[in-house]
Amino acid sequence: MLCSRILLRKSCEDVLRLGVRTGHPRFFNQISCGLDLVSMAGEWLTATANTNMFTYEIAPVFILMEKSVMARMWEAVGWDPEKADGIFAPGGAIANLYAMNAARHQLWPRSKHLGMKDIPTLCCFTSEDSHYSIKSASAVLGIGADYCFNIPTDKNGKMIPEALEAKIIECKKEGLTPFFACCTAGSTVYGAFDPLERVANICERHKLWFHVDAAWGGGMLLSPEHRYKLAGIERANSVTWNPHKLMGALLQCSACLFRQDGLLFQCNQMSADYLFQQDKPYDVSFDTGDKAIQCGRHNDVFKLWLMWKSKGMEGYRQQINKLMDLANYFTRRIKETEGFELIIENPEFLNICFWYVPSKIRNLEPAEMRARLEKIAPKIKAGMMQRGTTMVGYQPDKQRPNFFRMIISNQAITREDLDFLIKEIVDIGESLE
Amino acid sequence: MLCSRILLRKSCEDVLRLGVRTGHPRFFNQISCGLDLVSMAGEWLTATANTNMFTYEIAPVFILMEKSVMARMWEAVGWDPEKADGIFAPGGAIANLYAMNAARHQLWPRSKHLGMKDIPTLCCFTSEDSHYSIKSASAVLGIGADYCFNIPTDKNGKMIPEALEAKIIECKKEGLTPFFACCTAGSTVYGAFDPLERVANICERHKLWFHVDAAWGGGMLLSPEHRYKLAGIERANSVTWNPHKLMGALLQCSACLFRQDGLLFQCNQMSADYLFQQDKPYDVSFDTGDKAIQCGRHNDVFKLWLMWKSKGMEGYRQQINKLMDLANYFTRRIKETEGFELIIENPEFLNICFWYVPSKIRNLEPAEMRARLEKIAPKIKAGMMQRGTTMVGYQPDKQRPNFFRMIISNQAITREDLDFLIKEIVDIGESLE
Ligand SMILES: Cc1ncc(COP(=O)(O)O)c(C=O)c1O
Ligand SMILES: Cc1ncc(COP(=O)(O)O)c(C=O)c1O
Repeated sequence: MLCSRILLRKSCEDVLRLGVRTGHPRFFNQISCGLDLVSMAGEWLTATANTNMFTYEIAPVFILMEKSVMARMWEAVGWDPEKADGIFAPGGAIANLYAMNAARHQLWPRSKHLGMKDIPTLCCFTSEDSHYSIKSASAVLGIGADYCFNIPTDKNGKMIPEALEAKIIECKKEGLTPFFACCTAGSTVYGAFDPLERVANICERHKLWFHVDAAWGGGMLLSPEHRYKLAGIERANSVTWNPHKLMGALLQCSACLFRQDGLLFQCNQMSADYLFQQDKPYDVSFDTGDKAIQCGRHNDVFKLWLMWKSKGMEGYRQQINKLMDLANYFTRRIKETEGFELIIENPEFLNICFWYVPSKIRNLEPAEMRARLEKIAPKIKAGMMQRGTTMVGYQPDKQRPNFFRMIISNQAITREDLDFLIKEIVDIGESLE
Repeated sequence: MLCSRILLRKSCEDVLRLGVRTGHPRFFNQISCGLDLVSMAGEWLTATANTNMFTYEIAPVFILMEKSVMARMWEAVGWDPEKADGIFAPGGAIANLYAMNAARHQLWPRSKHLGMKDIPTLCCFTSEDSHYSIKSASAVLGIGADYCFNIPTDKNGKMIPEALEAKIIECKKEGLTPFFACCTAGSTVYGAFDPLERVANICERHKLWFHVDAAWGGGMLLSPEHRYKLAGIERANSVTWNPHKLMGALLQCSACLFRQDGLLFQCNQMSADYLFQQDKPYDVSFDTGDKAIQCGRHNDVFKLWLMWKSKGMEGYRQQINKLMDLANYFTRRIKETEGFELIIENPEFLNICFWYVPSKIRNLEPAEMRARLEKIAPKIKAGMMQRGTTMVGYQPDKQRPNFFRMIISNQAITREDLDFLIKEIVDIGESLE
């Protein structure tokens, strides 16, 4: 037993040693938010309490916390907390699935029982730069990925509302039934905010469900200085907001919020007598299980509740403003430094997308330069991984060769870390064959 | 700051004090598995490592662990690990959704792109005592809850294979396309094991996807003594198995396993260039994100890996056999004790369902007795909750008034705890007005 305890400890140490230190201030690889210690403590306590969120009777404190944390989120969105609804989901992708499912249910409640064969052919809309989970939801729900239409974006990555309306009209002409449009508030790659007010108008005009995927950008609602980028979000029917991104909660912590109470229950309840008896000795409206497509549900809320209590609204405001300041600093430095080229000239959020063009190839013909550029970012990243100094993501997009996507979301980042990254990219980039 | 630290600590203490101690050996309320300390340590380390399972590059160790843990599970099921596939899902309900979605995809791959309108009207089958998440998956996927047919069970809660085959034939006659049948291995309420071999034969004959929901019973595969109850599981196309139930892993830890590799990827991949670039400096087949309907994915595997390492196969065997022995003990005691009536005379698993009939009502007419019985279990449970001594679930079923469902899944349970529960039920039951 002693021996096995030592073995287990060794395993744990190995795992921490061999793992990627995603909490490191020079890990810029994904929408990763560093390691917040209060959140971590919250997760530890959650593990110790080891309960399940489906009924009030076994998770009374956490169910009440979920309600109170959601109330703060509803208020931040601008909704009446007396009328709103929501559920914590295992990630933004599933939250988006909840939203689309509820939208279908509202329009055609019979689809729950009789499926898609019995109703008109539905279609939905999202920008070409939105997260792939919207298309995925359309596939899973039996609507079909091809009936989720990509709306073009402008040069800043924002959905073009005119293009949306034109597509809705075209779909109607073709006999389809448009039912759902998604705006992204903080897009995954470019950090763009779609024009919510204008899309809300279009949705009203054509009677579409208006969903805002603020998985990444939702936290900006907590900064009075930057909140205006989400103006109009209060007109949404549903909002996805991931505290496990900008708010720094540990994975997983994601909410799907609804302006109108009741729908989530109607849409998802399956009358499981064995869990959700109506003759319990307490107010059974606290049982959340009947609203979920999950049965067992992990307690994702406690760590967020604890962080929020610890930082307060003011703490979050400062945290977000600080990250925005760092992003502006980084953008400025990129602009000043030779060889760097921004993809979007004036980023609005914490994503900064850019190429590094090594001096050797700066004077090539556009076509050749492009072909060479495609290979530069992967090579620079491989160099970083070999050195083990830093990590940043890259990708191509439909018209552009591979570029870096810098994400500034870790509280621990300093200006020095950003300067270091720039130096490292130049250094590795210039040393390439 | 000091003040705030004290405040936070106090909050944590309050939460633990006010919460329901689900790890307590006298908490028998749900399929809850006590608090395993190794699993808890695993969850703590997971929180500290705080990574995301979507790509190998940021979670190399955990991705490899997921593969190796799944290989053990495939072997336990009886599959060739070279050909099998799987994914960890946030709970058995979502795992069942994965399975049904993959089954649809295999039969009609175009449904991913063109939705349900473009394919025949599908229907699926599950026993009337199966978990509600099967019906829920059918609703979410756009097949429709009503096209998920409930097959009757026998007096032991097992699906009647003749009834399944008759229903399949009837559906075909009506122009429907049967595509998926689910057997439950360890049903939620009665702990029954459906006859897998016989259903496998029917699925082969009618070319249906054969899914086994072993969310609860899967752990029995680790006991050579009791494994025979799942004979035939190796013929399944997919299996849901929740280590967060019988294997004692903390919530959430659930796997959806597939006999055949490749399908999960074809069904769920959405070609997200920004995450799953093909020009990375490592074997990108390790990136699991493209198989998932989630994007960010919590690391649910480490705690299980650690427990398994700590207990070994032999440890799990003993753990499960011990629980089965306790269940047999409890059943015997219930049979001996006046006033108790078993719903299923010889339970096969860790669920023991029974009424307590207080002496006052033992001699009533059947109809009146039934009406009185309906109220007894809720009152006894309310009494327990008031006393704070123990907790056990109850529910009605289609033909029976409220009865208790005892679940023996916590390692910490002793015979004394079981004796205590019996005494407590008698005590409260006899004191009722
Ligand atoms: C047989 C069966 N399948 C599926 C589930 C759902 O599992 P989860 O609660 O992990 O979603 C349960 C839960 O009790 C179950 O008993
Ligand atoms: C805009 C957007 N929506 C949804 C998601 C999916 O969230 P999750 O990874 O929590 O499933 C992401 C993830 O990066 C995202 O950026």
